[in-house]
Amino acid sequence: MADNKEKQKKAVGNEKMLAQKETNFADWYTQTIVRSEMIDYYDISGCYILRPWSYSIWEQIQKYIDTRIKKLGVENYYFPLFVSQKALQQEKDHIEGFAPEVAWVTKSGSSDLVQPIAIRPTSETIMYPLFAKWIRSHRDLPYKVNQWVNVVRWEFKQPTPFLRSREFLWQEGHTAFATLEEAAKEVEDILNLYASVYEDLLAVPVVKGRKTENEKFPGGYYTTTVEAFVPASGKGIQGATSHCLGQNFAQMFNINFENEKKEKAMVWQNSWGLTTRTIGVMIMVHGDDRGLVLPPRVAPIQAVLVPIPYKDKDNEGLFKRAQELADQLEAAGVRIHFDDREGYTPGNKYNHWELKGVPLRIDFGPKDFEENNVVFVRRVDKSKTVVAQADIVSQVQSALEDIQKTMLEKARRERDSHIKNITEWKQLVPELDNRNIVMAPWCQDKECEEQIKKRSTIEAAAAATASKKKKRGGRGKKEEEKKEGEKKEGEGEKKEEEKKEEKKEEEKKEVNKDGTDNENKEETFEPLSSGAKSLCLPYQQPEGIEGKKCIGCEKEAKIWCLFGRSY
Amino acid sequence: MADNKEKQKKAVGNEKMLAQKETNFADWYTQTIVRSEMIDYYDISGCYILRPWSYSIWEQIQKYIDTRIKKLGVENYYFPLFVSQKALQQEKDHIEGFAPEVAWVTKSGSSDLVQPIAIRPTSETIMYPLFAKWIRSHRDLPYKVNQWVNVVRWEFKQPTPFLRSREFLWQEGHTAFATLEEAAKEVEDILNLYASVYEDLLAVPVVKGRKTENEKFPGGYYTTTVEAFVPASGKGIQGATSHCLGQNFAQMFNINFENEKKEKAMVWQNSWGLTTRTIGVMIMVHGDDRGLVLPPRVAPIQAVLVPIPYKDKDNEGLFKRAQELADQLEAAGVRIHFDDREGYTPGNKYNHWELKGVPLRIDFGPKDFEENNVVFVRRVDKSKTVVAQADIVSQVQSALEDIQKTMLEKARRERDSHIKNITEWKQLVPELDNRNIVMAPWCQDKECEEQIKKRSTIEAAAAATASKKKKRGGRGKKEEEKKEGEKKEGEGEKKEEEKKEEKKEEEKKEVNKDGTDNENKEETFEPLSSGAKSLCLPYQQPEGIEGKKCIGCEKEAKIWCLFGRSY
Repeated sequence: MADNKEKQKKAVGNEKMLAQKETNFADWYTQTIVRSEMIDYYDISGCYILRPWSYSIWEQIQKYIDTRIKKLGVENYYFPLFVSQKALQQEKDHIEGFAPEVAWVTKSGSSDLVQPIAIRPTSETIMYPLFAKWIRSHRDLPYKVNQWVNVVRWEFKQPTPFLRSREFLWQEGHTAFATLEEAAKEVEDILNLYASVYEDLLAVPVVKGRKTENEKFPGGYYTTTVEAFVPASGKGIQGATSHCLGQNFAQMFNINFENEKKEKAMVWQNSWGLTTRTIGVMIMVHGDDRGLVLPPRVAPIQAVLVPIPYKDKDNEGLFKRAQELADQLEAAGVRIHFDDREGYTPGNKYNHWELKGVPLRIDFGPKDFEENNVVFVRRVDKSKTVVAQADIVSQVQSALEDIQKTMLEKARRERDSHIKNITEWKQLVPELDNRNIVMAPWCQDKECEEQIKKRSTIEAAAAATASKKKKRGGRGKKEEEKKEGEKKEGEGEKKEEEKKEEKKEEEKKEVNKDGTDNENKEETFEPLSSGAKSLCLPYQQPEGIEGKKCIGCEKEAKIWCLFGRSY
Repeated sequence: MADNKEKQKKAVGNEKMLAQKETNFADWYTQTIVRSEMIDYYDISGCYILRPWSYSIWEQIQKYIDTRIKKLGVENYYFPLFVSQKALQQEKDHIEGFAPEVAWVTKSGSSDLVQPIAIRPTSETIMYPLFAKWIRSHRDLPYKVNQWVNVVRWEFKQPTPFLRSREFLWQEGHTAFATLEEAAKEVEDILNLYASVYEDLLAVPVVKGRKTENEKFPGGYYTTTVEAFVPASGKGIQGATSHCLGQNFAQMFNINFENEKKEKAMVWQNSWGLTTRTIGVMIMVHGDDRGLVLPPRVAPIQAVLVPIPYKDKDNEGLFKRAQELADQLEAAGVRIHFDDREGYTPGNKYNHWELKGVPLRIDFGPKDFEENNVVFVRRVDKSKTVVAQADIVSQVQSALEDIQKTMLEKARRERDSHIKNITEWKQLVPELDNRNIVMAPWCQDKECEEQIKKRSTIEAAAAATASKKKKRGGRGKKEEEKKEGEKKEGEGEKKEEEKKEEKKEEEKKEVNKDGTDNENKEETFEPLSSGAKSLCLPYQQPEGIEGKKCIGCEKEAKIWCLFGRSY
C-alpha cells in the first residue's frame, strides 16, 4: 500500500487557491473533490471514501432511479458479493472480458479456502442460475431484478476518484422477457432514464447511441450507451450502459420457460447499470476555478444564507430575521443552510460555499435588513439580484429552477462546440489535439475500428513529440503563451497540457527511484497522445452518409460514428 | 462449493405442507423462508439471496432508521470494502476478536497482490485513520458517521439465513464526542432506536441491557444490547448492539482535538450496528404452521383483496367493484394487492397469501357484493369481521394498527412466560431444557461466567444423554408423546427436539461418509445440549439483589443477569 500522505498533500495544494481548471485539470480535479469534502483518499490504491457531500448526491440519484424503475415493475434484491469460479466462467466471452480484473478471496483467517471465490465485478453469473430456477412459465415473465451494491474491478489503468475506482457503487438491473421486442423496448426505456439522470438531474448533456461490436458488453447482444463529454480534457466518457444480452446467457444458464402454446422457449435478457461515476462527470463538466458548481436538484444544500453583520451595532434583530427567512425556506422544502458561524468573515463564508458549489447564496446585510430585501448570488454565473423578503420562497424556487436550466444549456453549448463533423483522416488527430471529439463516417468493420485506434495513437504521439521539440527550440515561456493565446481556442491549453505531461514524466522517474510500487501510482489523466476510440454510433445521425467514405479504410461508410479520446 | 440441490430439496419439502414449527423448527424455518420467497440458497455456503419479499422489509427498516439518525445529526458516508493488514491490526483486542473470521483477497486476475487485503468485518479500523485527519477542533465535534453496507465474517459456526450468514447487510454508526457523557447519552439514544425497530416496527419485544465484560465488543469500553427471544427454540438472540468504545481506538489512531481551552484532548467514541438479522428474528417470533406472519408496518403487502366469483354468473360487476375498493385503499396509502389472477381458486389464493404472511385478507364474494360488505380475515388470529364497503379505508387502517399491536402483545406474553427468575444452580439446566431463559443473581466475575457456561454445557449434555437412554428403554412413540403432552409446557417439544438431534447426528455421519466438505454442511440449530451464556445485564432489574448469592460461584451477587442458550 502506498502511503497516502503525498497524495493528500498534493490534493490539498495551496490552502487558498485551487489549481486552474483549464491549465492544470488533473490537480484542479483532485483538489476540488478533496477540499470540497466530497472525497478522501485511502491507503489502498483505487479505493476512495465518499463523504456526505458526494454520498448524498448518490442518495438523490438512487431515489430518482429507484422510484422510476419500481414503476416499471422492477424489484430490488440482494445477491451475494461472492461468486464461485464455476459460475463465473460459465459464459466464455463474459469471463474473458472480466477475468484480468477479478479480485479473488483465497483465505479466511489463516486457513486457505478449498476453492478461491471471486468478488462480483458484475452479477450476471451470480443471478442467472437463480433465474433458471425462478422462471418456469410465461406467467413469470417479464422478470425484473435490480440491486444497489458495491462491485470490484481490480483495474490497472490509472485510478481516478469517481471515474475509475477499484470498488464502486452502482445499480444493476437484470431482466428477462419472452420476446426480443419487449427486451429491446426496455433497453430504450432504461437508456432514456439514464439520459434523464444526466440531463435532468445532473445538468450534463449526453449523446445516446449504440456501442460498436468491439466496445459492447462481453457476452451481450448489443449495448446502448449515454456518452458525456469533458471539455477541459477534450475526452468523451461513457455515462451509463443498457445492454440487450440476447439469449447467450439464457443458453448457458438454461433459462427456459413454457410459452403460451405450452412449448419450451428461451428468455431474452437485458442488464443495465449506472454508477457513482455520474458524480465525477458532473464535477468535471460544471466545476470552475472556485471549486464545485452543483446543480440544484442534487445539491445537498441548495441555498446558503449568509448574514453580513453591522460593524458597530447590535446584530440580534438582523440574525433573528435571517433565521426567520431560513425557516420559511425550510418549511417550503428548500434545502437551505443558515451559516451563522461566528469567527468567520462573510468573505470566508463566500469562499467556503463557492468551493462546495452551493447553487444559490443569499446575502443578508444591514441595508437588506433595513429595506426588507435580500441579495441572491448565483454560483453558476455570479449574477446578483435584489429580492424582496416577501417573495423569498417563490423567488428562491424559481431561481433554483432557472439555475438548473442554465447549467444544462451552458454545458450543452460547450459540449456542442467540441463535437466536430469530419470526413477526412487528416482532420482526426488535430481535432483530438484541439480537445474535440469527432463525428465521422465509418464502415462499421471491427478491424477498421482497431486500425483507427492504432493509427491515431501513433500520429498523436508523433504530433506530441514534434510539438515538444518545437517548444524546446523556441521562445521564452511567457511570450509563447501569450502568442498561443491569440491562436484559436484550445491551442494554448494544449501547450499547458504538454508541460504537465513532461512534469509528470519527471515525477514518475522520481517515484521509480524511490522504489514505490507502480501499481499504486495515481494519475488522473492518460497521456495526451492517446488515440481515438469509438464512443458510440449516435441515434441522432447527421444527414448524408450516402456516398461518404469511411474515415479509416476509405471503403463505403455505413454510419456516422462518434470517435474521441475517452476515459 | 457444496451443491445446493439437496438443500433446496429439503427447503422446499412437501409442496402442500410446511414442517411444524413446534416439533421441527429447523425445517419449518427453512421451508418458510424459501417458500414464502424471502430467501433463496446459493452455491457458496453461508451466502443467501434476499428476494424482494424480505429485501423490501430491509428497505422499510432502513428508511425508519435513516430518517431518525439523520435527525440526530448523523451523516451517511461510504468507506471502502477493503482494509489493509496494517490498519486492521492496529487495535489489538479488536483484531483478536475478528481475525479468525476475516476473508482475505490475495489475487487479482492471475497475479498475486503484494499485500493481502482484508474484506471489512466491521469498519472501525477503516474509518478511524480518517477521523484522526478530519477531527481537529472541538468545533468539529460531535462527529457522526453512518454507512449502509455489506460486511463479511467468514464464520465456521453453522450458518443460518438472516441470523448468521457470512455476508450480511447492516448499518454501522461511528461517532466521536468531546466527553464521555455525550458519548454515553448517544449509546442510549441509539439503543432506544434499536428497541423501537424491534418493538414498534417488527412487533418483537426486546430486553435492553449491558453486555458482560466477556461478551462486549472487542476493543470497546462497554456494549449495550437489545436481546430478543425465540420461543420455539427457547433461545435468546442478540438483536443489535450500541457500543461505547471509550478512548481505546482514539489512542491507537491518534484521534485528538483542541478543546475550548486550547488544550489537546482525546475523543470518546461509539459504534453501533443493526443487521438483516432483524428479519430472521421477526420470522421466528411471529411465524406459524401456515407460514410467515408479517407485522403491518413492514409487510410489503399489508392487505390482499381476494375476489370470490359467482359460480354460474357473470363476474364483471363483482370484479369491477373489487378493483374500485382496491383503488380506494391504494389512494389512502395502504399497500394493497388485488389478487385477480385467473386459474387459481380462492382457496389457492388464501394459502398463498397466508404462507407469505400478509396481515389482512379482504374476502369479497357474491353475498358481500350484493350487501355492500367485505370480510376481513386477520392473519395473526384468523378472526373474521364483516365490514361495510363504505368504511373500508378507515376500517383497514384501524385493523392494521390493531394487528400490529396484537402481534407485539402476543409476542410479549409468550416471551415473558419464558423468562424465569431463579436463584439456585440446580434450576438452571432444567429451565433451559424447558426452552426458557433465566434471570439469575450473579457476582459479575469473568471467571465465574465462563464456569457457568462450561458447567451448564456438561450438565445439559448429561441430561440429554439420560433422557435419550430413558426413551430408548421406554414406551412407543405415540404413547410417549401423548403423555408428555400432558406434562408442563415445553416438555413434549423437548423430546421432539431430541429426536431431531438424533436424526441430525445420523445425517452428519452420512455426510461424512460422502466426504462432503464439512464447512459447507448447514444446520439451522446447534445441539440442544449447549450451555448457558450471559445474554445481558438487563437495565430493568428485578428487585432484591441484596443478600442473594451468585448462581455460579455462590459468592455475593451484585446484579441480576439474563442467561440462556442463544444463537
